[in-house]
Amino acid sequence: MTNSGSDRPGEFEMIARLFAPLSHSAPGAFGLTDDAATIAPPAGEELVVTADALVEGVHFLRDDPPESIAKKSLRMNLSDLAAKGAKPMAYLLALSLPDWIDIAWLETFARGLGEDQRAYEIHLIGGDTTRTPGPLTLAITAMGSIPRGTMIRRSGAQAGDLIFVSGTIGDAGGGLAILKGEGDSISDAQRAALIARYREPLPRVTLGLALRGIASASLDVSDGLLADLGHIAETSKVRIAVDVMRVPLSPALQACWRDDQVARVRAATAGDDYEIAFTAPEANRSVVLEAAAGAGVAVTEIGRAEAGHGVVLLDAGGREIAVPRKGFTHF
Amino acid sequence: MTNSGSDRPGEFEMIARLFAPLSHSAPGAFGLTDDAATIAPPAGEELVVTADALVEGVHFLRDDPPESIAKKSLRMNLSDLAAKGAKPMAYLLALSLPDWIDIAWLETFARGLGEDQRAYEIHLIGGDTTRTPGPLTLAITAMGSIPRGTMIRRSGAQAGDLIFVSGTIGDAGGGLAILKGEGDSISDAQRAALIARYREPLPRVTLGLALRGIASASLDVSDGLLADLGHIAETSKVRIAVDVMRVPLSPALQACWRDDQVARVRAATAGDDYEIAFTAPEANRSVVLEAAAGAGVAVTEIGRAEAGHGVVLLDAGGREIAVPRKGFTHF
Repeated sequence: MTNSGSDRPGEFEMIARLFAPLSHSAPGAFGLTDDAATIAPPAGEELVVTADALVEGVHFLRDDPPESIAKKSLRMNLSDLAAKGAKPMAYLLALSLPDWIDIAWLETFARGLGEDQRAYEIHLIGGDTTRTPGPLTLAITAMGSIPRGTMIRRSGAQAGDLIFVSGTIGDAGGGLAILKGEGDSISDAQRAALIARYREPLPRVTLGLALRGIASASLDVSDGLLADLGHIAETSKVRIAVDVMRVPLSPALQACWRDDQVARVRAATAGDDYEIAFTAPEANRSVVLEAAAGAGVAVTEIGRAEAGHGVVLLDAGGREIAVPRKGFTHF
Repeated sequence: MTNSGSDRPGEFEMIARLFAPLSHSAPGAFGLTDDAATIAPPAGEELVVTADALVEGVHFLRDDPPESIAKKSLRMNLSDLAAKGAKPMAYLLALSLPDWIDIAWLETFARGLGEDQRAYEIHLIGGDTTRTPGPLTLAITAMGSIPRGTMIRRSGAQAGDLIFVSGTIGDAGGGLAILKGEGDSISDAQRAALIARYREPLPRVTLGLALRGIASASLDVSDGLLADLGHIAETSKVRIAVDVMRVPLSPALQACWRDDQVARVRAATAGDDYEIAFTAPEANRSVVLEAAAGAGVAVTEIGRAEAGHGVVLLDAGGREIAVPRKGFTHF
């Protein structure tokens, strides 16, 4: 772990001491005392690597609890690994810290990382800490392992494949809307549930591992369900048709946004879900549902891939619905 | 390669198109069209991974040429790999972009990356792009390969080992001082040479590879020669004594800061050198010099490790010199 840009002697030593325990289960991290770490995938496997940057005011709010910011940052990356079928191994954390961040904040942040490290079996192996005159900015690079050549790509969908999505869609969007003033009519428990989905997404790591060899294409839903299915449609060179009334909504979101077509379109374009959207051949339908049951995650069939290009949303009568541009900018 | 936080539809597609060519020699990057990349070290080797974050106004200036910012970011990480004896393989880039960055800036930035990719044989395999309301912030995670268990650590120095440093020390500090108004008395060529060392450090990749199995401890000089030798002293549990008059200065820096003890102390505490500081058993002295000659890099013996702790700077008569705290905060 390295550092730079501080004019407060000793400060970064304190930070290093705070983060060093997060590396103790990873021998190649050398207790964060070196400039670099070593890592190797298990025999016959390769590493899957992914990076995400988060900026205060863009991806989280300054008032969000530090442990939530820690968990959201890590889980965004875990979600990418999950969607690719990779088993989490290690991560590096680059922190750009504004002056308002103090050691107490960092202690809580590190505790959040520690809790998620235990929950998802991933370890800090390095990173960098610097001061910034701007907003708090985090960049995480996460690494997982997978048998060589088996990463679940975006590009493997075929015409005829079924479209599935894990969990429920739109909850994080609902949580953000509540933080911005919506949702007065719902219960405190429902509000808390939706806000929790915004602040602390649930990466579907176990499901992702179970989808190895079963899913033909996969990604995690971050930009919005329709926008992300657009990435699969584009790279797989297929058309994806989604039945709007099959998009799975949670009871809390149904209470907040109603349970109608308008709510489902809004949910399908909201983003920040960190569910897995994937395709599989129709012959794999029962295997998919068994894998989901084994992983303890609901999976819903929501549509089908066809010859053509782009994504269309169909109403209960099978008619195409016009969709607003937000969360839909990628095709 | 992923992205988020933009309200300018299509912008990130343009960025993706700009960066995709930088991934074409890395099959596991999938042309940056997926959420993640795959990578594996060669048989019998492991990966060495390191991360650095750079912030506008802290690590570079907004007016610095975009290709210099690109190269400095990449080279800071290449320098870490070099000091560990690792052969560069791939990197991920997380970019947080303020509004003043436009496509023309990014084109020049990407061209700078491309030039360095060819020079140092490293490839972009992924990353993330987001908008920020703050300063331009870059985080790079770089990966190299090394035979398993052979990474040159900070912690391997023994009492009796010799201390070496590559190249010349203080040039980047001189360049930064010139950008802040010093150095009126030197020639334009000398000014340009020192500024170039600040903006575009020269990672000692070939030398690092040649030091495998020869150096006992190693790191790259970023905080300042004395501060960084302090890291070796601390993790290796030795005392390091440096002869101030042997600290190698370039002719340009000698012209700018004079060639005396004061100039050498300033150089040894300036930082941003990205040279390799390393230790080796005395029995390896001639092997070290041959390795340096083979790599085409000057290497200077500047002191010795002893029993004890901390770093001391000795004058021409062998007396301890009091050193200002800057660049010296780590012990």
